[in-house]
Amino acid sequence: MMDATKYSVGYYPPPVEPGHVYEWPQKDHIEQAPAWCSVDLRDGNQSLIVPMSLEEKLEFYDMLVKIGFKEIEVGFPAASETEYEFLRTLIDGNRIPQDVTVQVLTQCRDHIIRKTFEAVKGAPRAIIHFYNSTSVAQREQVFKKSKEEIKKIAVDGAKLVKQLSEEYEGNFLFEYSPESFTGTEPEYAVEVCNAVLDVMQPTPDRPMIINLPVTVEMSMPHIYANQIEWCSKHLKYRDSVILSTHPHNDRGCGVADAELAVLAGAQRIECCLFGNGERTGNVDAITLAMNMYSHGVDPHLDFSNMPAICEVYERVTRMHVYERTPYAGALVFAAFSGSHQDAIAKGMTWRKEKQLHQWTCPYIPIDPHDIGRTYDADVIRINSQSGKGGIGFLLQQNYGYNPPPKMREDLGYRVKDVSDHEHRELSVKEVLGVFENSYLNHTQPLNVPDAHFIQNSDGSITANVVVTGGGSTVKCTATGNGRLDAVATAIEQQTGMHFTLVHYSEHALDSDTNSRACSYVGLKWASGEETWGCGTHTDIIVAGIKALVSAINNK
Amino acid sequence: MMDATKYSVGYYPPPVEPGHVYEWPQKDHIEQAPAWCSVDLRDGNQSLIVPMSLEEKLEFYDMLVKIGFKEIEVGFPAASETEYEFLRTLIDGNRIPQDVTVQVLTQCRDHIIRKTFEAVKGAPRAIIHFYNSTSVAQREQVFKKSKEEIKKIAVDGAKLVKQLSEEYEGNFLFEYSPESFTGTEPEYAVEVCNAVLDVMQPTPDRPMIINLPVTVEMSMPHIYANQIEWCSKHLKYRDSVILSTHPHNDRGCGVADAELAVLAGAQRIECCLFGNGERTGNVDAITLAMNMYSHGVDPHLDFSNMPAICEVYERVTRMHVYERTPYAGALVFAAFSGSHQDAIAKGMTWRKEKQLHQWTCPYIPIDPHDIGRTYDADVIRINSQSGKGGIGFLLQQNYGYNPPPKMREDLGYRVKDVSDHEHRELSVKEVLGVFENSYLNHTQPLNVPDAHFIQNSDGSITANVVVTGGGSTVKCTATGNGRLDAVATAIEQQTGMHFTLVHYSEHALDSDTNSRACSYVGLKWASGEETWGCGTHTDIIVAGIKALVSAINNK
Repeated sequence: MMDATKYSVGYYPPPVEPGHVYEWPQKDHIEQAPAWCSVDLRDGNQSLIVPMSLEEKLEFYDMLVKIGFKEIEVGFPAASETEYEFLRTLIDGNRIPQDVTVQVLTQCRDHIIRKTFEAVKGAPRAIIHFYNSTSVAQREQVFKKSKEEIKKIAVDGAKLVKQLSEEYEGNFLFEYSPESFTGTEPEYAVEVCNAVLDVMQPTPDRPMIINLPVTVEMSMPHIYANQIEWCSKHLKYRDSVILSTHPHNDRGCGVADAELAVLAGAQRIECCLFGNGERTGNVDAITLAMNMYSHGVDPHLDFSNMPAICEVYERVTRMHVYERTPYAGALVFAAFSGSHQDAIAKGMTWRKEKQLHQWTCPYIPIDPHDIGRTYDADVIRINSQSGKGGIGFLLQQNYGYNPPPKMREDLGYRVKDVSDHEHRELSVKEVLGVFENSYLNHTQPLNVPDAHFIQNSDGSITANVVVTGGGSTVKCTATGNGRLDAVATAIEQQTGMHFTLVHYSEHALDSDTNSRACSYVGLKWASGEETWGCGTHTDIIVAGIKALVSAINNK
Repeated sequence: MMDATKYSVGYYPPPVEPGHVYEWPQKDHIEQAPAWCSVDLRDGNQSLIVPMSLEEKLEFYDMLVKIGFKEIEVGFPAASETEYEFLRTLIDGNRIPQDVTVQVLTQCRDHIIRKTFEAVKGAPRAIIHFYNSTSVAQREQVFKKSKEEIKKIAVDGAKLVKQLSEEYEGNFLFEYSPESFTGTEPEYAVEVCNAVLDVMQPTPDRPMIINLPVTVEMSMPHIYANQIEWCSKHLKYRDSVILSTHPHNDRGCGVADAELAVLAGAQRIECCLFGNGERTGNVDAITLAMNMYSHGVDPHLDFSNMPAICEVYERVTRMHVYERTPYAGALVFAAFSGSHQDAIAKGMTWRKEKQLHQWTCPYIPIDPHDIGRTYDADVIRINSQSGKGGIGFLLQQNYGYNPPPKMREDLGYRVKDVSDHEHRELSVKEVLGVFENSYLNHTQPLNVPDAHFIQNSDGSITANVVVTGGGSTVKCTATGNGRLDAVATAIEQQTGMHFTLVHYSEHALDSDTNSRACSYVGLKWASGEETWGCGTHTDIIVAGIKALVSAINNK
């Protein structure tokens, strides 16, 4: 049963005067990429129903390196044999490139910190990420300790980390997280971080990472940004601190948390591919990077082969990439509806005609080609909701047919009918099938297998035509203003049908010199009905006659 | 290939002086539920690979009414035979409750507006939602019209809507959307909306909805909030306008858009269940409602049976509820990792002991019970990453066993081993199996089928014990400080084993009067190894001996 009185806002806004104006809302967008740290192998892995095996982790790690992550959290080696083994495989197998730093996680507990330094021995560089939980709920319910006692855990941890980093050989960097920051009073979180910083004594040359995680998302994203701005201004050694964020997504605002935090002073983001991670996930690295990209900012992460990244991810994590996850999901560029398809088709044509470098197509935030996706399979997709614009566009893009608008409309209804009736999406090839079956080069029941023309002195044309149909073959003659008009008149006279030629157009179908011509004919009948036909042939005259005959046969 | 120079920020911030301070960031959270409008049957349906059938739409509609939506957009009846038929079925079948208003969508085109009024005839109340696209891209690429011409489309549409609403019988409300608002200059959007309002002449008694959609998400969410605040202040007839938002999710910030827009003045949200909708989806109604709920605000939407809602949604849309979608996803309350499980177990125990009404459990944003989910299946889940805290908690919650901390640790390793080896998640029942197989009432190789005790005058106890093992049965006697001590000494003497009893505890296992006792024994061996045993019996003495024997048999 739902009962809202069980809940209250469980977060702690910064201690500012009423009316305090934060600076971050003045900024419009992110102007340069932050430092990225992948936590796929830690947070991501620990949220899987079946965690990755050593081999699967290695494949994932290699992919992260290839994408361009320069900081990769590889696990909690002191707490897990598997993570210890994985780290040793990376180090002993020389799998850590010179420009990549591995990060290891450790609680602020004596024996775990010691084991962590053992585990990381011989790594070219390593970030020692130590943490303890500082929230009101954890202090009260889990640790049952006072603020001073909790701070002492952090400070004692820092002291041991510093001492061991001097005793062990290695190139160590440091990160401290007041875990469950979003349930912690900001002034207390800063007090703890500053006490840790006093121990670690970072310098601008050897800065330290302070990570303020959204362990559980508890507030609206602008409140988190306020917290980040306030902490950023109250941290000591600020020019020697790399301020980091690590959002989860419990309120569906992980991306907003990260982005607004960057405006508010965060310089680094811990994130996972496809928003994997505990519960609702860690913030999605792909969305963050591609959001920057779509604003013209190079994210320094390479997602140009998104389908391949999806394939590896789905295989090794046994998770599914959600169809609507931004940029990567199967449906995120898809337009099924007529009006959207029409606008996209016009936008794509505009872009082509104007030879634009800039991407401005309606409804499609980025060019799907940039990330290895295709227009055909991913953008305009055909079902019973689709319309003439999209269907016509697909036909033109893929097969070169450019039927006139009213014929596209007629085709649209036919395609919708098929999809509606079969209750499924249609492929581009099936759309072509509907077009061909409906209009192209129909010779039943009527056909005109032969036609000869004589140009008269008054400019009119006389056609001698062979008409077949109903088992008989007849020769007949008629005169008209043009060749097609003369053939049409001959057919009318021969068959007793009455129609008006309301549309004729043509274009070359192939781009080479042996190009076929493609003609479209629209006829209006006494009943008001309109029918359409298409004809193709290397001889443009023949193509026109075929189109005419097809339109007649559609009556 | 990725090339960020193809992109630039494609949105238009409001025309304010540099340094302008917006008011919305001063607000911390949403204090009352907005008006909700479901667009599942329009935006949601048109984004499906296979759109819903009439019967499926009716089932979805009934569910929306049951959840508590008072405004439901039912389609575009003038553009689709299916949507026309659906609307008629609702009206003619009297399926629209008195407190529910259906909403129909129409482009600002003469014949479509006319057909819309025909379609909606006889509805008890209806919102006529008319729109035209106003963005720079659509004006330029799709309509190839000037600002004045585009505004005229809106104004002409409004005039016809007003005229027909006077000609037709019915209780009509009105909504206008400058479609593709996020690609439109805010000052131009307001100009168009104000021109429409001048035609419609809303009053505080008969307000009109102005909807400023995030047709495509193009900016960070605070920019959208700025746009909403600016438009809210520059719309005419403001006290007669219901300002509405309709976010899509292309940048993964649909929820943030909606929430910040409400702070900035929006009074109504158009949304879909589970964030269904074109491309990346429309903003998720469930996340928005439950976010408010988790801050103590009654959303006036009832999601108390989320599993049933998921079932209907998945069946009729043929979509899958994403595992990590907030509140509703299969994994969003799940904790696999040891440290999280431990904190949750302590938080749950704290809550029980203190009999708290307020929900404050670490890592779990709301009580899963509120929405019809269970702790067992949804929260603490066991795989190779899990730890003693969670495993012990599950055992206690489900079966009443409360082993001591060090025994929980031992059990934790055993459970992890099984999960690691079998490469899968374990059920609660399987965890019980591991516990029973490992510790409970073991009688092989050694057993003590019988024991009698004599209390000596010095307070010591003498035990006469039958010990079986290795095919033989032996009676032996020993004296100790207590019964268990005497039995242990007898076994040591008989078998030549040496161990120290380092732990003994007991509790009642069942809550009734015929309760069985449950005892735990920990032994330390000369090698330093510790072994554990558990015994259950209605006689507490027998339970203790069984625990002792089990611990010995674990050597």
